[in-house]
Amino acid sequence: MSDSNGSNAPPQPIECRAWVAYEPKKPLKLETVIVNPPQKGEVRVKICYMALCHTDAYTLGGLDPEGLFPSILGHEASGIVESVGEGVTSVKPGDHVIPCYQAFCDACKFCLSRKTNLCGSVRQWTGNGVMKNDSQSRFTVKETGKKIYHFMGTSTFAEYTVVHEVSCAKIREDADLESVCLLGCGVSTGLGAVWNTAKVESGATAAVFGLGTVGLACIEGLVHAGAKRIIGVDIDAKKFEAGMKWGCTECVNPMDHEGRPIQEVIVEMTDGGVDYSFECIGNVEVMRSALECCHKGWGESIIIGVAASGQMIQTRPFQLVTGRVWKGTAFGGFKSRVDVPKLVDRYMNKEIKLRDYITHQMQFEDLNKAFDLLHEGKCLRAVLKAMPEK
Amino acid sequence: MSDSNGSNAPPQPIECRAWVAYEPKKPLKLETVIVNPPQKGEVRVKICYMALCHTDAYTLGGLDPEGLFPSILGHEASGIVESVGEGVTSVKPGDHVIPCYQAFCDACKFCLSRKTNLCGSVRQWTGNGVMKNDSQSRFTVKETGKKIYHFMGTSTFAEYTVVHEVSCAKIREDADLESVCLLGCGVSTGLGAVWNTAKVESGATAAVFGLGTVGLACIEGLVHAGAKRIIGVDIDAKKFEAGMKWGCTECVNPMDHEGRPIQEVIVEMTDGGVDYSFECIGNVEVMRSALECCHKGWGESIIIGVAASGQMIQTRPFQLVTGRVWKGTAFGGFKSRVDVPKLVDRYMNKEIKLRDYITHQMQFEDLNKAFDLLHEGKCLRAVLKAMPEK
Ligand SMILES: NC(=O)c1ccc[n+]([C@@H]2O[C@H](COP(=O)([O-])OP(=O)(O)OC[C@H]3O[C@@H](n4cnc5c(N)ncnc54)[C@H](O)[C@@H]3O)[C@@H](O)[C@H]2O)c1
Ligand SMILES: NC(=O)c1ccc[n+]([C@@H]2O[C@H](COP(=O)([O-])OP(=O)(O)OC[C@H]3O[C@@H](n4cnc5c(N)ncnc54)[C@H](O)[C@@H]3O)[C@@H](O)[C@H]2O)c1
Ligand SMILES: [Zn+2]
Ligand SMILES: [Zn+2]
Ligand SMILES: [Zn+2]
Ligand SMILES: [Zn+2]
Repeated sequence: MSDSNGSNAPPQPIECRAWVAYEPKKPLKLETVIVNPPQKGEVRVKICYMALCHTDAYTLGGLDPEGLFPSILGHEASGIVESVGEGVTSVKPGDHVIPCYQAFCDACKFCLSRKTNLCGSVRQWTGNGVMKNDSQSRFTVKETGKKIYHFMGTSTFAEYTVVHEVSCAKIREDADLESVCLLGCGVSTGLGAVWNTAKVESGATAAVFGLGTVGLACIEGLVHAGAKRIIGVDIDAKKFEAGMKWGCTECVNPMDHEGRPIQEVIVEMTDGGVDYSFECIGNVEVMRSALECCHKGWGESIIIGVAASGQMIQTRPFQLVTGRVWKGTAFGGFKSRVDVPKLVDRYMNKEIKLRDYITHQMQFEDLNKAFDLLHEGKCLRAVLKAMPEK
Repeated sequence: MSDSNGSNAPPQPIECRAWVAYEPKKPLKLETVIVNPPQKGEVRVKICYMALCHTDAYTLGGLDPEGLFPSILGHEASGIVESVGEGVTSVKPGDHVIPCYQAFCDACKFCLSRKTNLCGSVRQWTGNGVMKNDSQSRFTVKETGKKIYHFMGTSTFAEYTVVHEVSCAKIREDADLESVCLLGCGVSTGLGAVWNTAKVESGATAAVFGLGTVGLACIEGLVHAGAKRIIGVDIDAKKFEAGMKWGCTECVNPMDHEGRPIQEVIVEMTDGGVDYSFECIGNVEVMRSALECCHKGWGESIIIGVAASGQMIQTRPFQLVTGRVWKGTAFGGFKSRVDVPKLVDRYMNKEIKLRDYITHQMQFEDLNKAFDLLHEGKCLRAVLKAMPEK
């Protein structure tokens, strides 16, 4: 493993370890890879901590038809800038950062809109697993010379990765990197779904479908927003303990109401339905339930879960004509490079929790074990230690 | 035909003419009916002008499984209060009124919410074709003694009707009743979809699917809101003349783009999609197109059209996760008794047009002919003269 030299010498290729996904449904393989230097507008980041999220498992499971292989997965991490390419001004070597799969360029029509966080500046390249400057990957397997695709513009299952400057949020240095890595996806998404997408107001009622990390983060966001009633919904009753701890006022298990759609149960429990609902699973049937358990006239349902490709959501149009609203969110509507540092501040001010989501602390070598835990539904977030900070 | 007596004598049954829908898909039958006096909280209205809307045709066509027969249809009308029942305070005999199928009681949880206009105070009775006070109809056919159901709480295809006080909007007397009857449904719905439901802002782009009265009213609302680009969509090219006259900047016919979904065509025309779209037809396939022609990140689609019962809307959840919003509207979100009088004011101030929507002026006897015109797509609104004002 090498490191970059003095600050004026151009960055050199780095040899390090990375987990390569060679094909869908197969375990990842630990490889020695060459990580090329960052080019114009790019940043090479040493990954200190990485977590895994369902979207990684989803792609590895072959459910994303646009998933490219071989690739380096991972999109929830924290690290330290190792070197920067030409023209990079917002970060410098040594800065603490969180790679962000939602970029923020501050110049495209999305970034200039107050209504969305879906920056379009690098999407056509990240969607193809390459970097914008030369439409190439920065990763090669040392032994075979095989090029490896990037993933979500982040590829954090590696000791070093290269990201676009627009995808690299600089954060304060006193925040512990192990905790804040979770702000790279799941926790931010749940909080933002409540605060930015639904804009839940004090006194509201809500139902949260799926009590994984994203669902729990919704619950945390709801508690902050002053929601007076928060119904947790999960088919795994083991999740209710965490649900209640995070702030649910009650939990329901659709399995206990066989033969009756869960939306009917919730409408009855709430005398007409909830003000807001959140789908944090990725199941199109549940998305329908989440919409239909909303109150006539004003209930809003937010889709967060990512469904298997090709699947469709459906409902009767009457549900919408009578005032329900169907929305979705990506990264909770947060404008990444602007908002992630603010979320880190809120964590440091003890306004939001992060450590409670970490159920497993593991080593870089343990990634396949962490995937197993995820599939068994046994973990919220497993955080793996990659490179030492110093 | 009799009329009520002096102001202190209790109102008596009135014998008058009404159009009875005996069964689905059959022409209406002109009958002499007995209209019982208004009971507690009820108002008997002399209908001066009545228009027909697609929802009447939809119910007569048997497409509404909850449609009750025999009934007196009609929900777009204007008239004069003939007599009032016990406890009625908001209107008195002689007042000019517009019957409103969306009630406004100012007391239920819907009326107290700023987010909806779907008053729930009389819905369970109007949905069953009866009045709240005694769960009975006020209509009987003279010859046979047969009870006839009410429709939408309005039943305006009659010379006299009985409505709940909460469904009776008092309007100024200098407004011509022939024009303002249109504010009872179609025109208000289109304007409100833009102003209340979508809250379209100046400079926005929009697509309006279906250039009937509702679609044209959307266009009128969009022009008022300052929309800079308004794309009209209809499969009947004859509708484009009105579309352009009302304020479309261009019109497209899906028939000219066979083999290509119209949403693709619009996304291409607009470099990514429109800010707002409105479905004013009632076709679930078009509802999907309307959603999917919206711009990623912020586009909102409003369903106004009423689909045949049992039909489902569908799309990929990714459409919502990437920032599109799916909504609907009933009566354009207007709180009827509060807002309809204000719309009349705006008409009197020449801020909104109404006469231009009236393509046919007919007599009470011509109702079946008017239905034929509607089915042939030959009219915007046919307005029929029922009883004389004096
Ligand atoms: N939109 C975004 O930006 C975004 C960001 C992060 C994650 N996600 C997606 O959010 C979803 C949730 O992520 P997570 O990490 O919290 O997942 P998770 O697997 O930890 O949690 C999902 C929970 O749903 C429960 N569940 C499964 N099927 C259910 C059903 N039919 N009814 C009720 N509960 C059911 C499971 O028991 C589990 O507790 C995933 O689809 C993920 O891809 C989306
Ligand atoms: N939500 C509400 O509160 C509310 C109120 C009033 C009316 N409505 C509904 O709104 C709808 C429109 O009412 P209207 O009176 O304007 O009807 P209309 O029949 O006058 O207009 C419909 C227009 O749609 C066009 N059209 C039909 N199929 C099409 C297709 N596949 N693609 C493009 N255009 C197509 C027709 O040519 C016609 O011009 C109806 O479904 C009615 O029931 C709803
Ligand atoms: Zn994720
Ligand atoms: Zn951007
Ligand atoms: Zn109507
Ligand atoms: Zn009410």
